[in-house]
Amino acid sequence: MNTQPDSAPLIGVLGGMGPLATVDLLQKIITETPAGRDQDHVPVVAWNVPQIPDRQQALAGTGESPLPALLAAIRQLNRLSVSHIVIPCNTAHHWFDALAAESRAPLLHIADATLELVAHLAKDRVQAPQKVGLIATAGTLRAGWYQQRLAAKGAITLEPTEQEMAMFFVPGCYAVKRGELQEGGALLEQLAGRLVDRGAEWLVLACTEVPPALAAVKSRWLDISIDPTRALAQACVNIWLSHREVSVSTSRNSADESPERN
Amino acid sequence: MNTQPDSAPLIGVLGGMGPLATVDLLQKIITETPAGRDQDHVPVVAWNVPQIPDRQQALAGTGESPLPALLAAIRQLNRLSVSHIVIPCNTAHHWFDALAAESRAPLLHIADATLELVAHLAKDRVQAPQKVGLIATAGTLRAGWYQQRLAAKGAITLEPTEQEMAMFFVPGCYAVKRGELQEGGALLEQLAGRLVDRGAEWLVLACTEVPPALAAVKSRWLDISIDPTRALAQACVNIWLSHREVSVSTSRNSADESPERN
Repeated sequence: MNTQPDSAPLIGVLGGMGPLATVDLLQKIITETPAGRDQDHVPVVAWNVPQIPDRQQALAGTGESPLPALLAAIRQLNRLSVSHIVIPCNTAHHWFDALAAESRAPLLHIADATLELVAHLAKDRVQAPQKVGLIATAGTLRAGWYQQRLAAKGAITLEPTEQEMAMFFVPGCYAVKRGELQEGGALLEQLAGRLVDRGAEWLVLACTEVPPALAAVKSRWLDISIDPTRALAQACVNIWLSHREVSVSTSRNSADESPERN
Repeated sequence: MNTQPDSAPLIGVLGGMGPLATVDLLQKIITETPAGRDQDHVPVVAWNVPQIPDRQQALAGTGESPLPALLAAIRQLNRLSVSHIVIPCNTAHHWFDALAAESRAPLLHIADATLELVAHLAKDRVQAPQKVGLIATAGTLRAGWYQQRLAAKGAITLEPTEQEMAMFFVPGCYAVKRGELQEGGALLEQLAGRLVDRGAEWLVLACTEVPPALAAVKSRWLDISIDPTRALAQACVNIWLSHREVSVSTSRNSADESPERN
């Protein structure tokens, strides 16, 4: 039933956590795509259904597990024959292995996408950054996905203190979820400043609520910030561009049936 | 397989025409929703697959029909048991009846949603506007959806001339599709000014590429503009809020099983 040729990608987005973070990913997929017309853009289907139990509360032991709702969403996306699945919510990656086991389509991990972007950015510098600040939920900090991958590249991760989490991160994040980007951005800006004061050369904004909030307040730290949502968008775009290039070169040999007609 | 209770809405978006217009609708659905947390937001699944033949070219007789791709998308959304379907592309409404006939879920017409918004706005004025400018594709202008509905409310529709379509609308619209919002916005701003010069009191921006482009150039006409994408978003939000209110009142009678826990 897929409207794409069999081999064409169809990116499935397991979204809704929060719904604005999903829109942010979809927007960044479009921005990152070199395109001259609608048909050049990445084919995406986004499950943006926010009725998923709160991930932070579940990991803190104060709320029910989101896993059943996440598994149901994975099954829905697979019914549409998606080729890959991405999750624009760092904290939800706590359930990544269980979701990957249930899915026919492979899942891309947001920390893998981010470290590819870090490696790409570091390539252009004389010296790669030694200290990287990590802004994330307590669940993501505890999981260690980013710290382990950064350590493998020789970088030390600086984390917010418990007090900074309570004062800046948690209220900032939930302000964004209420749609109050200015209020959330102001709080997260302060947290970013603390990490820079302690020596962070780059910041990884590893909670999908953070990049739109810092953008809303025109944060002074955006230039040294790495946005995992943008990294995930680039991974999706790369999958699509690889296919488009193959399609174009195929169409040079067989004139008909190419999706790249002009 | 729906993660919602049986009676809960799930809005299906037949998108991709263009992909940015779909993101604009998703964003406006979030903005229009009174919500204090993720779970309060409208559940949406968006089919944002832009590999659909160009609608303007098809209606001009210079390109293939998008109907097969649109029907395939309708079938995909129905496989997910969506409760309603919306199409954030005015021109695609040319195939509305054929799509509605194929769909188990009812389709909301973007011009119906827009006229509800017009009626709502006119309610607060001493005198409803007599002349309304319409910015739309040639296909949408020819179809007459907006003109007929405005006439039923006693308003005259002012349309761009053929020359204005060729000079401003067509290049402006395709600039937006290339991602060049400033260039597209500048062209569409000129078109809006022409309609105002001829006496338009309000403008209906009946091509989903137009509202983001005019917003990008901070158009002086935004205050008198009616955005059908926002009207469609409000229709989606109203469906969801009606359900949320019913859920809340039900939960007052039976304490368990409400999705409105706090």
